[in-house]
Amino acid sequence: MGLTDIGEFGFIRRVRRGCLIREAGVVRAIGDDAAAVAGDPGQLTLVTTDLLVERVHFLRESITGVELGHKSLAVNLSDIAAMGGTARDAFISLAIPEDCSIEFLDAFYDGMKALAAEFDVNILGGDTTRSKQDLVVNIAVIGSVPEPQMLLRSGAAPGDIIVSTGFLGDSRAGLHLVLNHIATETPAFRALRRAHVLPKPYLREGRFLAGTGAVTAAIDTSDGLSSDIRHIAEESGVGVRLYADRIPISDHLTAFCRGMNSDPVDWALSGGEDYTLLCTVTPDSIEPVCRRYKEKYASPLYRIGEVIEAKNMEIVQPSGEVKPFDVTGWNHFR
Amino acid sequence: MGLTDIGEFGFIRRVRRGCLIREAGVVRAIGDDAAAVAGDPGQLTLVTTDLLVERVHFLRESITGVELGHKSLAVNLSDIAAMGGTARDAFISLAIPEDCSIEFLDAFYDGMKALAAEFDVNILGGDTTRSKQDLVVNIAVIGSVPEPQMLLRSGAAPGDIIVSTGFLGDSRAGLHLVLNHIATETPAFRALRRAHVLPKPYLREGRFLAGTGAVTAAIDTSDGLSSDIRHIAEESGVGVRLYADRIPISDHLTAFCRGMNSDPVDWALSGGEDYTLLCTVTPDSIEPVCRRYKEKYASPLYRIGEVIEAKNMEIVQPSGEVKPFDVTGWNHFR
Repeated sequence: MGLTDIGEFGFIRRVRRGCLIREAGVVRAIGDDAAAVAGDPGQLTLVTTDLLVERVHFLRESITGVELGHKSLAVNLSDIAAMGGTARDAFISLAIPEDCSIEFLDAFYDGMKALAAEFDVNILGGDTTRSKQDLVVNIAVIGSVPEPQMLLRSGAAPGDIIVSTGFLGDSRAGLHLVLNHIATETPAFRALRRAHVLPKPYLREGRFLAGTGAVTAAIDTSDGLSSDIRHIAEESGVGVRLYADRIPISDHLTAFCRGMNSDPVDWALSGGEDYTLLCTVTPDSIEPVCRRYKEKYASPLYRIGEVIEAKNMEIVQPSGEVKPFDVTGWNHFR
Repeated sequence: MGLTDIGEFGFIRRVRRGCLIREAGVVRAIGDDAAAVAGDPGQLTLVTTDLLVERVHFLRESITGVELGHKSLAVNLSDIAAMGGTARDAFISLAIPEDCSIEFLDAFYDGMKALAAEFDVNILGGDTTRSKQDLVVNIAVIGSVPEPQMLLRSGAAPGDIIVSTGFLGDSRAGLHLVLNHIATETPAFRALRRAHVLPKPYLREGRFLAGTGAVTAAIDTSDGLSSDIRHIAEESGVGVRLYADRIPISDHLTAFCRGMNSDPVDWALSGGEDYTLLCTVTPDSIEPVCRRYKEKYASPLYRIGEVIEAKNMEIVQPSGEVKPFDVTGWNHFR
């Protein structure tokens, strides 16, 4: 079944079920010229938006509708997480080509709604239109954060410890499997593909970290560790020193790299779309923050390096040798 | 010059100049994971988003960058106007094909920034990425409105007078000229094309109308009079009676239709993208509201019909004959 069979308004009626997760503060949801919501008193409103284009960000034949729906929303929730915020409402714009089935779109909304429900996020509106060729998804998410707790990219100071909330490089390896049509039959390959198509937004962790008052800067790893940490360094006017043997590498990525005869640290540095949080933490708070984080989330905060005064981007090799690292992270136009 | 020459971050640096129109309440603009703004105390937050896709909503060779930038933002501002709100901040997502020049994109931002400045709207963020073929623009706009003044599509009651803030059908005629590559050498044709590519958002007028307390329902005319008025009728559980000879038709459209041997009322009913406001006003307030509106904006509120109890969609012909009218407004998938 295609969209021409049910029309734009039929489609909207079809997908609006299950979009309202949390009614408090929602004065008008899907169905008018704009959505209307009450603000959180005393909190800042956060707004982020991400655009995913077929053949640039995904291949429709290589991703399920559920996965694409999950991922499209997750990358936006990750941006709210990186500000230390709570995500509240999502707005979904879809440009749909004729050969895209209703079943794929239903699955897309199912994936999105499941993630939205997990994080108490409403789907409150958007825009639905045709496309001549590529499926295009734009999601805008609004959230809120108490102003004193907001996490910015600026604020890192020399001596601060750099942490990541999760493994790095897995998503890039998963993308490699997808692009090269490599069967994901082993548990390791399945896990890598999963890291790529079903990224976890670290919203609860971001909120917790913001609440500690010990985080001086934060970003989510969307472009790759080397590129994302550079944003923090540039916005904060500092440099960074990473330690190659402290970068968190999953067993899955290790297995994958053994087969590829390549260094997992390269995949972590230049890979993208892991959507872990990368934060700088004041040195006197790092111990209690890491301990409380581990107690709360049963997963460590990985300490991967430190902020330095000299505006260099350095990585310490296992041999002890210090090397500058290139910004080999994803740049959409090069 | 193309985007590959300056890269994604070069492009962002290039366009961010002139995006911040109003600093009050803006805690973080372009340059972090999300924008952060302070809410208007006691007001609701409005959110709207619109997606424009090349070859579906516009032809890149038939529209200038300035026009496309203006129009992309205007259609969103129009949605805020139709809620009776004030527009505050815009978020621009662009998927850019390789053959789209930096000069076109600069002009796009120029057109958008000029309109943003006119209405005191900040451009606070967005997303920029590649596209394989079509240029895609998604804009999300947040605004605010005092809750008791918010205008919804529901609320129209029998006896209410239906008004439009401007001419109807001009934009559809302008689209006809564009699609058929008809030279716009006459003033009439130039005006029609202009109505299509440079629509006026009725933000000030919407705010004024919301403040009167006499408007019971509102929508902007994006899909065409027949389709848009039906949204009000359905959401309000009422019917409408329009008068063919009261529908505001510009001299330009009259001249155009003379050449086409067609009825301008048909163009007004089935045309779209005029972006006038269509409101229902309580009958006891219609005279003072129209008088004050005309004094303030030197342009009339056109009274085109009334709300009726029977759930019919009727139009009274100049002969006095009452006919049902079809929903011939734009439906993106039929």
